Amino acid sequence: MTNLSGSNFIAGKASQQGSSTFTSVNPRTRAAGSVRFFNATAHEIDEAVTHAAAAFEITRHYSAERLAAFLDRAAAEINGLGDELLETADWETGLGIPRLTGERGRTTGQLQAFARLLREGSYVEAIIDTALPDRQPAPRPDIRRMLLPIGPVAVFSASNFPFAFAVAGGDSASAWAAGCPVVVKAHPGHPATSELFALAINRATEGEGFPRGWFSLLHGNGVEVGQTLVQHPLLEAVGFTGSLRGGRALYDTAARRERPIPVYAEMGSINPIVILPGAAARRSEGLAEGLVNSVTLGSGQFCTNPGLILMLNEASTRPFIEAVKGKMAGRAPGVLLNEAIERGLTATVAGTQGRGTVETLTGGTVVEGDSFCYANTVLETTGAAFIADGGLQAEHFGPVTLLVVCESREELEAAIRGLHGNLTATIHAEVDEIDVAEALFSLLREKAGRLIWNGFPTGVEVVQAMQHGGPYPATTAPGTTSVGMTAIRRFLRPVAYQNMLEALLPDALKKANPLGIWRIVNGEMTKGEVTSL
Amino acid sequence: MTNLSGSNFIAGKASQQGSSTFTSVNPRTRAAGSVRFFNATAHEIDEAVTHAAAAFEITRHYSAERLAAFLDRAAAEINGLGDELLETADWETGLGIPRLTGERGRTTGQLQAFARLLREGSYVEAIIDTALPDRQPAPRPDIRRMLLPIGPVAVFSASNFPFAFAVAGGDSASAWAAGCPVVVKAHPGHPATSELFALAINRATEGEGFPRGWFSLLHGNGVEVGQTLVQHPLLEAVGFTGSLRGGRALYDTAARRERPIPVYAEMGSINPIVILPGAAARRSEGLAEGLVNSVTLGSGQFCTNPGLILMLNEASTRPFIEAVKGKMAGRAPGVLLNEAIERGLTATVAGTQGRGTVETLTGGTVVEGDSFCYANTVLETTGAAFIADGGLQAEHFGPVTLLVVCESREELEAAIRGLHGNLTATIHAEVDEIDVAEALFSLLREKAGRLIWNGFPTGVEVVQAMQHGGPYPATTAPGTTSVGMTAIRRFLRPVAYQNMLEALLPDALKKANPLGIWRIVNGEMTKGEVTSL
Repeated sequence: MTNLSGSNFIAGKASQQGSSTFTSVNPRTRAAGSVRFFNATAHEIDEAVTHAAAAFEITRHYSAERLAAFLDRAAAEINGLGDELLETADWETGLGIPRLTGERGRTTGQLQAFARLLREGSYVEAIIDTALPDRQPAPRPDIRRMLLPIGPVAVFSASNFPFAFAVAGGDSASAWAAGCPVVVKAHPGHPATSELFALAINRATEGEGFPRGWFSLLHGNGVEVGQTLVQHPLLEAVGFTGSLRGGRALYDTAARRERPIPVYAEMGSINPIVILPGAAARRSEGLAEGLVNSVTLGSGQFCTNPGLILMLNEASTRPFIEAVKGKMAGRAPGVLLNEAIERGLTATVAGTQGRGTVETLTGGTVVEGDSFCYANTVLETTGAAFIADGGLQAEHFGPVTLLVVCESREELEAAIRGLHGNLTATIHAEVDEIDVAEALFSLLREKAGRLIWNGFPTGVEVVQAMQHGGPYPATTAPGTTSVGMTAIRRFLRPVAYQNMLEALLPDALKKANPLGIWRIVNGEMTKGEVTSL
Repeated sequence: MTNLSGSNFIAGKASQQGSSTFTSVNPRTRAAGSVRFFNATAHEIDEAVTHAAAAFEITRHYSAERLAAFLDRAAAEINGLGDELLETADWETGLGIPRLTGERGRTTGQLQAFARLLREGSYVEAIIDTALPDRQPAPRPDIRRMLLPIGPVAVFSASNFPFAFAVAGGDSASAWAAGCPVVVKAHPGHPATSELFALAINRATEGEGFPRGWFSLLHGNGVEVGQTLVQHPLLEAVGFTGSLRGGRALYDTAARRERPIPVYAEMGSINPIVILPGAAARRSEGLAEGLVNSVTLGSGQFCTNPGLILMLNEASTRPFIEAVKGKMAGRAPGVLLNEAIERGLTATVAGTQGRGTVETLTGGTVVEGDSFCYANTVLETTGAAFIADGGLQAEHFGPVTLLVVCESREELEAAIRGLHGNLTATIHAEVDEIDVAEALFSLLREKAGRLIWNGFPTGVEVVQAMQHGGPYPATTAPGTTSVGMTAIRRFLRPVAYQNMLEALLPDALKKANPLGIWRIVNGEMTKGEVTSL
């Protein structure tokens, strides 16, 4: 076993400059871990970002191939952590070995997928418009544009994906792929897991000969470390996955900087599912089973957890609701990640129950015992109440879903029109309900980043086409995604070259197209060399 | 001649609900115009955005072809305004008929260029990853992603481009191209010109059968109208071209909204030009002439005006500086757009002069007379002073440039490293200075959105490859551009469809590729139909 130190890691070096510490807590037993983790000091934060800025002076010149080699090496080093990584994360999060094994594969697969994107190379979006020397009244210059890395990035780990949205998760992978050094603020819920990742990433950084400021890890179990980090003048962008409150606080701080920087925060989402009567009638059992699986997956601690079910009050509705209620009540509740989540879930469900329009069909209470645990919970309200009260769109981060029963198609549409921004929106319908589904999808399209037909929102594929984002409060940047290959776009910035000497052009923009990438040359997509108009 | 009403135009209808008015002022004579323009009221602002949101319910379903037809029609209607447009704008801005004629061509050309982009169609960035039904442990769903319009957009006109960055300028054109209704806050410096544009755009809107909320025009000669507009809950994005102070105020307001929205503000830039000794020696006369042309173009009222010249103290330097000084002093100063610009320029130059490290080689004073006018001005300071004092990077919005003479290559590099964000950065060098130029471009790349070799930054081509943006304070969104075809990206938002029925997919994502656009299908760029993996 690795002897963990509890250190921050500043540009490859263990650092324990502060005196304030905290420990892991096992969510199954509430036992404290034996290692004390050191909250980063203001000086350590400054060191980390300063080293990142120095590293960027070097890495901003790296080829896509060199960046890809790092990503592959990082994946290999993560795999090299072996069972210790799974066991440590399981001890800290209670997520279980099978889930964590799958998440590890997703995390390394994501790093490798970015490596493939880099090697293909067209992600730099090269566009070339050649000169028109004879144009009147003045010649048109040659203009060539591509994407280049934005600079040092701060990444805030999430608690619910200790691998895939954490130290070397999607935000870090996409920032590294862009050529940007990363300072990770580790989540205090799994600091030992984070240290193991830091050791792996440090090995990859050193092994590939990258400057050590390419990666730093900072611990912090309060808001101060993150707030200080986001204010650092050398930082250029922020990636965050977590709560609305946490993301908004960082967004606000970044917006108040003398020099504001973009904050890409993926925050709250209730992921509405519309179930049309035909689907509820003809596949009640399977649909209820699938829904309960999705709501309780990972103890409901997913940003894509279906927290809102919209239905019409038809003959099939009550039997379906009874089936959902029965399955939710009959399934053993899972362990929650930590005390803060149990406390937050208790408070938000109580808040919803307290609005006076909501019935608790099952659950609605903490499950007493050794573990952090909350009962699988089904709430119900009316369409009218939901439309009248935006507070009923509060996210319950756990195994909780709110059923909204609408009295008419008009009420259902009004409920959808009143939705806040979400990551996903789903419709379950039968083929003879397509016309209604089409009309409702048309409304849902304005409310979410991903539209799902007869499926469930949990399970976010890491593919080029994935969109994991959406209107606020799902994210602070609805034009971007935090999962999938286009996530790299957040950490790139376009630069145009005007009448530049061939020798001074980046390879992506040279006449002969030495990288063999797709480029738009004088309006035509081509892998060919540049020919003048 | 058109009988101007001084009205706001809310969804096609003239509206004068307020009592506060203002007039145009002729910058050549300080004469007030005869038409009183009505500052929009809070109620009119609400009406405009509410109509825009209603229009979006319709236009978000429009095909690219239909949007393109509107853009072409808008260009035709603008041309149909004939000489009256040029004469009105000349009276209000003093920019002169030749310049305004060229700017009109650029403005209509920009609308038509977006129409071509829409008809080609690939701007929706379609990406398709087909299902892997046999994948273990769970099948991979089919995911298809494209860009869709973001919703109602507010556009703030600039004073210095009464056509190209105004009512139907680049921000409006790119928002309309995206499918977004636009509420324009007209610049109070050219309200009559704005009304003529509004009449033309209303004709295009009506002529193409678009909902009337597709376009509204609001007047306001203070900050209130803009501040109220940006706070409207139905607004989804903001485009702004203007001063750092104005852009930052809107950015701050949008960031403080309960639901923040993106603000794409193009603001201050001093557009550094590095002139290496060989260039200064071997083409002193031509370079000085070109530089003075660029600094005084449009009386220096360009966001790409070269306000900073960085040189090394070599034998060729003083003669070059003398040549610039002589040409600047010898050229008749142009008229400024309005009193606010004259007042602002006077204050910012005085602020720079007052820092105690700057010598005024020529100019530095208001030119008394009927016109708003400021002397062509050359300031000089040392590299050491420039490095020590970030205040010397203040923008002087007018015919003013600051020469910085560095004592060494190291000092020059330190000056570049200390630069704030800019729209452009330029190097003038001879072929035997390429190594130095390459090293300096490498530093300048982090400071600007466009790098220019042996040219001048004024003159921003409207081509696909153009990048008109840069790190703060050049813009609030360094990953975007406000000129060129990729400006449309600001007003689009990705949406992914998961396992969607073919019948419910947008045309851009259908199997047969009915639009014939470029798509990335299972990682391959293709115009072909979708084939499974």
